[in-house]
Amino acid sequence: MRLRKLKNVEERLSARSDLVIADAVQYKGKWKSFFNNDNPIYIEIGMGKGKFIIKHAMTNPEINYIGIEREASVLVKATEKVEEKPSNLIFINFDATDILDLFDDGEVDKIFLNFSDPWPKSRHSKRRLTYSSNLINYKRILKRNHSIEFKSDNRHLFEFSLRMFIANDFAIENLSLNLHEDYDDVITTEYEDKFIEKNNIIYYVEVQNGKNETIWKIS
Amino acid sequence: MRLRKLKNVEERLSARSDLVIADAVQYKGKWKSFFNNDNPIYIEIGMGKGKFIIKHAMTNPEINYIGIEREASVLVKATEKVEEKPSNLIFINFDATDILDLFDDGEVDKIFLNFSDPWPKSRHSKRRLTYSSNLINYKRILKRNHSIEFKSDNRHLFEFSLRMFIANDFAIENLSLNLHEDYDDVITTEYEDKFIEKNNIIYYVEVQNGKNETIWKIS
Repeated sequence: MRLRKLKNVEERLSARSDLVIADAVQYKGKWKSFFNNDNPIYIEIGMGKGKFIIKHAMTNPEINYIGIEREASVLVKATEKVEEKPSNLIFINFDATDILDLFDDGEVDKIFLNFSDPWPKSRHSKRRLTYSSNLINYKRILKRNHSIEFKSDNRHLFEFSLRMFIANDFAIENLSLNLHEDYDDVITTEYEDKFIEKNNIIYYVEVQNGKNETIWKIS
Repeated sequence: MRLRKLKNVEERLSARSDLVIADAVQYKGKWKSFFNNDNPIYIEIGMGKGKFIIKHAMTNPEINYIGIEREASVLVKATEKVEEKPSNLIFINFDATDILDLFDDGEVDKIFLNFSDPWPKSRHSKRRLTYSSNLINYKRILKRNHSIEFKSDNRHLFEFSLRMFIANDFAIENLSLNLHEDYDDVITTEYEDKFIEKNNIIYYVEVQNGKNETIWKIS
């Protein structure tokens, strides 16, 4: 199954230069001044068609959101959902592998990874967004004691990712092996909505950058 | 729901003094000489009616097995399953809270925890066999770089336990969020068999005592 290629993708992205930031690497280390405020910066890596991050941005005007998506033809669909650009939301057409080119150490307050491509074959494991080489980068750009929230319907990707987080010294802040049974105010992605309809399990973990000393909190 | 009390439990256990070791604390630090060999020592904490550990002992004569069960009336049922006592299997009627009285530091090669009582109420969390105070003890009696295998059908107990293991610096060696979908040669407990029939999910994790440096192994 392949994505149908949209026509004139580059032009359509350029037409939304208010929302899709071109040459974004120039703002590395300067995102606070880009947004012209001191608010926290939350990013979604692999934002897809954007429902999740757009909803977050609308709900939390006091937080700046940066959505990152490698596939231009997918990002175009997200732009179509944003008529009036909120001041706290931008998108970047970028490959997460090079994320250190976008953010300085400790520049990010939260990372969301939603339904990342599972790359099911072992020999492709390095392409997963939760592979060690990526986690090491996320750890650098993420403030100390801040968190990554990861959700997936793919059991093997989730198991792999959980092990990767732990092996890379992230601490578990929250964990649910059936997110929608435990919470009813979840902000969902397009993909997630389809799974909820089918009553499929969504796995969720929030991991913290830095050792969790709050054993007493776990109940 | 309460266990029906069996009659003459103490007498029935005493009648199997070949299998159920009385005054076991005297063998702390001396289990190798008790078994009269140098074989590894595997223990099951909360062995219940014994199917799992009996099967293990029959399958692996080169490993010594010690089953621990607090409820005498449950342990009696396990004794009834063992007509001829294998030389590598004993049971102890004992409360795991005091496990440091049974084993010296590093005396144990593997710990099994199967379908432990979930104690679902938060205020009872300290009674769970995977509560921190217990994990700290398990860590002492378990050899360095050796493992605990834990399985449960109870999602919340499993989430809790996984977080407890990680917060206590165990490393994840193996993880399956659907054990019987991933493996078909699983040695089961009585309880587990009922769940398999109902097609319920069994969660499984193997955690290692000591930091896991083998990130490259995770696929």
